Amino acid sequence: MTIRVLINGADGKMGQQAVKALTHAEGLSVAGQAGRKDDLSAIIAQIKPDVVLDLTTASAVFQNASQIIQAGVRPVIGTSGLLANQIQLLTAQSLEKKLGGLIVPNFSVGAVLAMKYAQDCARYFSDVEIIESHHPQKADAPSGTAIRTAEMIEAARQKMLTPTFSKETLSGARGANYKNVPIHAIRLPGILARQTVMFGGSGELLTIQHEISDRESYMAGICLACREVMHLNTLFCGLEHVLFTISK
Amino acid sequence: MTIRVLINGADGKMGQQAVKALTHAEGLSVAGQAGRKDDLSAIIAQIKPDVVLDLTTASAVFQNASQIIQAGVRPVIGTSGLLANQIQLLTAQSLEKKLGGLIVPNFSVGAVLAMKYAQDCARYFSDVEIIESHHPQKADAPSGTAIRTAEMIEAARQKMLTPTFSKETLSGARGANYKNVPIHAIRLPGILARQTVMFGGSGELLTIQHEISDRESYMAGICLACREVMHLNTLFCGLEHVLFTISK
Amino acid sequence: MTIRVLINGADGKMGQQAVKALTHAEGLSVAGQAGRKDDLSAIIAQIKPDVVLDLTTASAVFQNASQIIQAGVRPVIGTSGLLANQIQLLTAQSLEKKLGGLIVPNFSVGAVLAMKYAQDCARYFSDVEIIESHHPQKADAPSGTAIRTAEMIEAARQKMLTPTFSKETLSGARGANYKNVPIHAIRLPGILARQTVMFGGSGELLTIQHEISDRESYMAGICLACREVMHLNTLFCGLEHVLFTISK
Amino acid sequence: MTIRVLINGADGKMGQQAVKALTHAEGLSVAGQAGRKDDLSAIIAQIKPDVVLDLTTASAVFQNASQIIQAGVRPVIGTSGLLANQIQLLTAQSLEKKLGGLIVPNFSVGAVLAMKYAQDCARYFSDVEIIESHHPQKADAPSGTAIRTAEMIEAARQKMLTPTFSKETLSGARGANYKNVPIHAIRLPGILARQTVMFGGSGELLTIQHEISDRESYMAGICLACREVMHLNTLFCGLEHVLFTISK
Repeated sequence: MTIRVLINGADGKMGQQAVKALTHAEGLSVAGQAGRKDDLSAIIAQIKPDVVLDLTTASAVFQNASQIIQAGVRPVIGTSGLLANQIQLLTAQSLEKKLGGLIVPNFSVGAVLAMKYAQDCARYFSDVEIIESHHPQKADAPSGTAIRTAEMIEAARQKMLTPTFSKETLSGARGANYKNVPIHAIRLPGILARQTVMFGGSGELLTIQHEISDRESYMAGICLACREVMHLNTLFCGLEHVLFTISK
Repeated sequence: MTIRVLINGADGKMGQQAVKALTHAEGLSVAGQAGRKDDLSAIIAQIKPDVVLDLTTASAVFQNASQIIQAGVRPVIGTSGLLANQIQLLTAQSLEKKLGGLIVPNFSVGAVLAMKYAQDCARYFSDVEIIESHHPQKADAPSGTAIRTAEMIEAARQKMLTPTFSKETLSGARGANYKNVPIHAIRLPGILARQTVMFGGSGELLTIQHEISDRESYMAGICLACREVMHLNTLFCGLEHVLFTISK
Repeated sequence: MTIRVLINGADGKMGQQAVKALTHAEGLSVAGQAGRKDDLSAIIAQIKPDVVLDLTTASAVFQNASQIIQAGVRPVIGTSGLLANQIQLLTAQSLEKKLGGLIVPNFSVGAVLAMKYAQDCARYFSDVEIIESHHPQKADAPSGTAIRTAEMIEAARQKMLTPTFSKETLSGARGANYKNVPIHAIRLPGILARQTVMFGGSGELLTIQHEISDRESYMAGICLACREVMHLNTLFCGLEHVLFTISK
Repeated sequence: MTIRVLINGADGKMGQQAVKALTHAEGLSVAGQAGRKDDLSAIIAQIKPDVVLDLTTASAVFQNASQIIQAGVRPVIGTSGLLANQIQLLTAQSLEKKLGGLIVPNFSVGAVLAMKYAQDCARYFSDVEIIESHHPQKADAPSGTAIRTAEMIEAARQKMLTPTFSKETLSGARGANYKNVPIHAIRLPGILARQTVMFGGSGELLTIQHEISDRESYMAGICLACREVMHLNTLFCGLEHVLFTISK
C-alpha cells in the first residue's frame, strides 16, 4: 500500500526537490502540495494524507506541527527551530492522539551515521577535535552539527579531558572550546559542507569525515522518514531513531 | 587484585614493548618473561600466571596456545598464523578446561573500531572503496586488514553492488576486486599504516580513516585483552569481543 | 577596450555557463553565440569578433579551429580531441597568419597549478602515487588528468623509480603502472572530480590534492584564456602558458 | 672530493642522528664531533673542517656562528633562535671573510616545498586557511611554520582578503587571524607534525599537505645543506635557496 504524503513548504528549494524525490520513491506518493499562503488544516481535511512532511520556516513550524497532529495525521518535521518546550507540547498532543511522528534536524543519513560513530568512538578515545568546513555564506560558526556532535561526544566520554587551550600565542588558534571539545570552523568557497572528527591516541589517529556536495543527499532520509513514521507510536526526535531501528 | 601475566616472546620487538606497557598498567603485572629457547610449560608450572600473552611467531603459535590451555591458564594470543581448524581444536580444548581465552589478530583499538563502523555503514551505503597505504617494505598487497574489512562490509550490505571494473583503459587502475569491494594499495615511504574506507551516496561521502604511526598504539589493546580475558568462559576471536562488551 | 568573444557551442552545458560568465567578466563581452547548426565562418565574417571560444565536440573541433584561424581570428579551443598532427597543422596555419591562439585541455586554474606542483615535487621525491576519484558515470579509468600528471612527473624525476608491482596477492591492488607511477582510480557517487598526488620520503609525506565540485570552477580559466590570447603571437597548448606568464 | 663536516651539538638528539646520516652520505664525512662542554674554536683549529654544522641551542647559536665564521669555515646553522640583527652581523662577517654559509630554520625538504607551493598558489586564490596539527606537548600554537606560511601567502597575494571572523557564535571557532589568513591549531596524540593549506575558489579546492612522522625526514636537508654550502659566496637564510638553485 502506498503511503500518501502531503508536502507543506512545497514551493521552497528543499520542498521542490522533495516533491521530485517522493514522486519517484517506492511505496510513497505525493498526495498534495501546500505553500506559504495555503490553509494547511483545510488542505489536510480535504486530501486526508497519511503523512504531512513539513519543510517550511522556523517561525511557522510549531503551529504547523500542532495543526498536523490535531488533524490526526502523522507529522515528519524537517524544519528546524522548534524549542524544547514546544517539542514537549507536541509530544503531549501526540500521546493524546496515539499518533506517531518524527522531528528530523538533519535528513542526511551519512551525517547521522558520522555523529553516531563519533559518539561511540568517544568511549575509547578521550582526545578529540572537530573541524567543520562550509561555504563563506554560512551565517554561524561553528555549525549546529558540530555543536550537536560535541554534545554527543561529551555525553559518551568516560574520562574528562581538558584540552590545552592556554598555550595560544595567537588568540583563537586552538579553536572554540565547547564541552571540552575544540571546534575549528573553516569558511572557504569550493566547499558546501564537510565535517571531520579526529580522535587521537598513542601512535594512532581515527578520523570520521562526512561531506555533502548536493542537497540531493537529504532525499534518502526524507523518504526513509516518511516510510518509517508509519510504524511509530509516539513522537520521536532524530533520524537516528528510525535509521537504527530498521537496520538491525 | 592484580592480574599476573606471563609474556611469551618477550625478546621480540612487540614483546619488549609489551613488558614495558604491562609494567605500568593498572591492575596488571608482569609475572614472568619467556623467550624462544625457554620451555614454556615449565615456566608456566613454576610461575603460575593468571594469563599468558603470546607474541611469538606463526610457526610456534599453535603449540604455544595448546600448551597454555593444557596448563589451565587463560591465553591471549597476539601472534597471527592460526588456521581455522587449529582454532577449532583450541576452542574444544578451552571448553573441556572451562577456560576463557582470546585470539587477537589486531590489538589496535582504533583499527577494530574503524572496521566496526565500516561494517555498520555498509548497511546504508552500497557503494564503497578501500584505500590502504603502507610502507614499501610490507610483504603483501592488499593488507590483511583491508581484506578483513571487505569481508565485513560484504556480510553487512543488503544490496549487491557490482563496481564497474570493466572500464579500465590501463589495467589495474580500478584496484583489486574482493567481495565486490575495490581495494587500492599504496606503498610509500613516510607512512607506517593507514586505511581509508570511503562510502559514496547521492551528493554525500562518508570516510572512515585509521592511521598507525607507532607500535605503541597496540599497547592499550594488549592491556585490555589481558584484563578482560579474566571474564570470559570460552575462547573468543577478535578484540571486538571484549571491546564492545565492556563499553555498554 | 573590451575584448569581443564569439562563443561556438553556446547551446551546450559548458557553452551556456560560459555565456553567463563572459557577460559578467571585466574587459570581456559576448559578441555572439553559435550552435551546432550554424555556419561558423559566416557568423565570424558578420560579427568580426576578437576571439572565438570553441566549446563543441571532438568530431567538429579540428574543422572549427581551422576555420577560425583562416578567418584571421584568435582561437581559444576548449574542446578536447585534437590529435598531435592536427595541432601541428593548426600551428602552421597560425604562423602563416601571424596569429596567437590557445588550445586548453583543462580550464581549471587549480588543476593546472596542482599538476605544476606535482611536477616540481617529483624533482625532490622519487616515490609518488596518484589517486584520482570521480563519479561512477565517468567513461574511462584512469582519468586523462592522471595520465598527464604521470607524464609530467616522469619528465621531471631524476632517479628512476621502480614501484613494487610484483607483490600483489590480489591482482590490481597496486593500481595501474603508467610511466612507473602507480595510478589508482576510485569511482563513487558523491564525488565529481578529485585528484590526490602523494609523495613519500623518509619520515615525511607531501600531498597535493585538487577537487572540483562545480563546473563553475572552469569559468575563471576561460576568462583568463580569452584575455591573454590577445597577447600571444602563435598557437600555444595548455592554460599553464598564460597562467604562469602573467603571474610573475 | 669528500666534504669534511664538524658537527657541533653532536650529543643532542638531532646531533646524534646527523652523525649517522653524514657517515653514510655520499660526498660527506664526519670530521669531528663537538659537545656542550668543548671549546669549539680549538676543535675547529685542530680539525680544519670544510663545514661546521651547528645543532645546539638558541642561547649558544649566535656565539657559535660567529666563531665558525671567524675561523674561516663555512657554517650550516640548524639551530633556531637567531634574531634579525644577529643575522645582519653574521652576514657582515661572512662578507668580510668572503665566505659562504647557510642558516636553515627548517631542514625538511617537503616542508620547504609545501610552503613554496602555498606561496605560489596565493597568487591565484585569495581565499585560504591553514590547519596545523601537532602532538599535545608542543609549546606554542600556532606553529612557527604556520606563521611563516601565512607571511609568505600574504606577500604573494594580490587581492586583499578579509576573512569573515565576525560571525563566531563561539569565540575562537574561526581560528587565529594572522595576516588575514585564518590559522587553526589542532593538538592530538598520534600526530607528530602536519600542516594543511587549503585554497578555495568557485567550485574548486586546492590542498597542500605536509606530514612529518619521523625526525629522519630532516636528514636529507642536512646533507643537501652541507654539500651546497660549498658553492655559496655569502650567507643565505632558508633551505629553499640551495634547494631551488640546484634543481633547475
